Amino acid sequence: MEPVRADQIKKVLILGAGTMGQQIGFLCAAKGFETAIYDLSPPLLDTAKKRLEKLAGRFVSRHRLTGEEAAAAMARVTLTPDSEQAAANADFISESVTESVEIKCRVFETFHPLCPARAIFTTNTSSLIPSMLTHAVGRPDRFAAFHFHNTLTSDIVDIMPHPGTTPETAETIRAFALRLGQVPIVFKKENHGYAFNALLMNLCDTALFLAAGGVAAIEDIDRSWMGIMHMKVGPFGIMDSIGLDTVLKVNEVWANQLNDPRAITNVEFLKKYVNEGKLGEKTGEGFYRYPDPAFRHKNFINQA
Amino acid sequence: MEPVRADQIKKVLILGAGTMGQQIGFLCAAKGFETAIYDLSPPLLDTAKKRLEKLAGRFVSRHRLTGEEAAAAMARVTLTPDSEQAAANADFISESVTESVEIKCRVFETFHPLCPARAIFTTNTSSLIPSMLTHAVGRPDRFAAFHFHNTLTSDIVDIMPHPGTTPETAETIRAFALRLGQVPIVFKKENHGYAFNALLMNLCDTALFLAAGGVAAIEDIDRSWMGIMHMKVGPFGIMDSIGLDTVLKVNEVWANQLNDPRAITNVEFLKKYVNEGKLGEKTGEGFYRYPDPAFRHKNFINQA
Ligand SMILES: NC(=O)c1ccc[n+]([C@@H]2O[C@H](COP(=O)([O-])OP(=O)(O)OC[C@H]3O[C@@H](n4cnc5c(N)ncnc54)[C@H](O)[C@@H]3O)[C@@H](O)[C@H]2O)c1
Ligand SMILES: NC(=O)c1ccc[n+]([C@@H]2O[C@H](COP(=O)([O-])OP(=O)(O)OC[C@H]3O[C@@H](n4cnc5c(N)ncnc54)[C@H](O)[C@@H]3O)[C@@H](O)[C@H]2O)c1
Repeated sequence: MEPVRADQIKKVLILGAGTMGQQIGFLCAAKGFETAIYDLSPPLLDTAKKRLEKLAGRFVSRHRLTGEEAAAAMARVTLTPDSEQAAANADFISESVTESVEIKCRVFETFHPLCPARAIFTTNTSSLIPSMLTHAVGRPDRFAAFHFHNTLTSDIVDIMPHPGTTPETAETIRAFALRLGQVPIVFKKENHGYAFNALLMNLCDTALFLAAGGVAAIEDIDRSWMGIMHMKVGPFGIMDSIGLDTVLKVNEVWANQLNDPRAITNVEFLKKYVNEGKLGEKTGEGFYRYPDPAFRHKNFINQA
Repeated sequence: MEPVRADQIKKVLILGAGTMGQQIGFLCAAKGFETAIYDLSPPLLDTAKKRLEKLAGRFVSRHRLTGEEAAAAMARVTLTPDSEQAAANADFISESVTESVEIKCRVFETFHPLCPARAIFTTNTSSLIPSMLTHAVGRPDRFAAFHFHNTLTSDIVDIMPHPGTTPETAETIRAFALRLGQVPIVFKKENHGYAFNALLMNLCDTALFLAAGGVAAIEDIDRSWMGIMHMKVGPFGIMDSIGLDTVLKVNEVWANQLNDPRAITNVEFLKKYVNEGKLGEKTGEGFYRYPDPAFRHKNFINQA
């Protein structure tokens, strides 16, 4: 059976109703697609529904949608723990379950037989590459990474085929990204972290290494970056918003798998924060204290 | 003899009348200091004088100085190839000669005996660390790095003592930086590239490595960074403004000295541009073509 073409896509299935499943699901619904969001249990889906409504409100307050458009988008969303109902007639699958090869593979193995043969499967993984998951997808030729950033503040999406992805599939995903109003960045080869995440993590790791080595103070490193780049946030402020537990996980992978001495130093440095429950913005403290971190103060740069 | 205190500084001596000597010299003069700028020959100093006048004009057109203030600043500047005249009564020395250990050491050896014993010596080196130069300075306790960025667009300055710098010297340089209206970042340890340059070069090297490895196109890498960070320029645009010959030099040091495999790949990649004379903005072509590079076009991000 021929795979679906981008102009034929009507129903999108989102696997996982967490932070990203909500964002991607709402975006698809806002752009007019029938959107099913699947997760494991009704309580998880209830929480997701509340967060979707909040997200809709933010699109309205930022003048990205009118109130009616947001309501129409919400009406296109079905949240369900019923995998068969979720999969029925799905044309395009966007997977955003927990970042784990095992969990993602299990989910793909469940949904491949339930979804129409013509449907395209994609993963929103941040740190894995699609070829680590192909064996579980059942239709590797119709599978690639399709990776979103914060849909409220950016419209860049990464499309990363694996060697077995057909050119038609990559093109269909690209055309679908355009229908979603996004800017598709198509990768020529697989790479952990796509482009942006790889750039950002290297920037953050350099900043961590300078602080861990006692070269300069955290605030001074951010101040240098912000003052010369004319940015409102520096690497430590960025890491606080990502979550120091997540930054630690990435560095642990690099420390263990690549035996990178810089990552080993950074892991020790980050652990001190994470072990004290200082995970960044979400816990009220990380490198800075929230909700009123020093780097957002008016004279932060001049207070060196 | 007691070293000079910041509030006693009246005359600044700038060694080297190139790009940075002009910028630092003009800044000192604009802040009311008598400023001598020394370089090897009268023709070099004539060129520097013309560039200083241009720079003064830019401070005026950007409303950083009035016309009278700029003229008064120019009147405080003496450009001279006479080392004794330049050194007489100098309180503070800022060295901005060519980036070479040999040349810098020769210049320090010349000026140490000519300058008052109370004077403080500083180097504006970008990639070296002060302890590589201390043996030539003659007064290592009164010496540290004092490193400027573009004085027209940023007011961050790096102060990096070496282990033999006295705390008083570091404090004097810091207080002098404040008199110059700058934001001093004081380093606790020596580090090649201070903080900002180290962060920026790591960002650029990650970008180069992605392009050299064929992971994504140059424009797409910049687009990702610009679109998500909301910046007007990405790493390749930044490298074009630094100069690809300079970026190549830094990578060659890392490739040779640190045997860094990423730097080795990046050196090969950069050489193709440099060998064709594509050095970036200054030669009209680098990763982009100037004066109208694609990344400055209005719809650059959406043209993926
Ligand atoms: N958070 C980000 O900023 C971000 C950005 C881009 C990509 N990503 C990627 O998106 C994916 C999801 O991240 P997130 O931040 O939304 O995580 P999250 O923890 O907020 O959500 C994950 C969801 O998956 C669900 N889940 C777990 N096992 C499942 C299963 N077997 N079937 C169905 N649902 C299951 C969980 O119940 C949870 O609701 C990850 O791969 C992550 O790398 C995250
Ligand atoms: N260009 C930048 O963006 C930048 C930024 C910060 C720091 N720096 C650092 O500033 C220093 C100067 O860089 P630049 O870009 O101004 O270089 P430049 O090539 O524009 O100027 C160097 C000047 O030093 C002079 N010189 C050489 N030997 C000399 C000697 N023996 N005595 C006196 N003068 C001599 C040269 O004639 C030339 O005018 C370097 O250490 C560099 O790393 C450069």
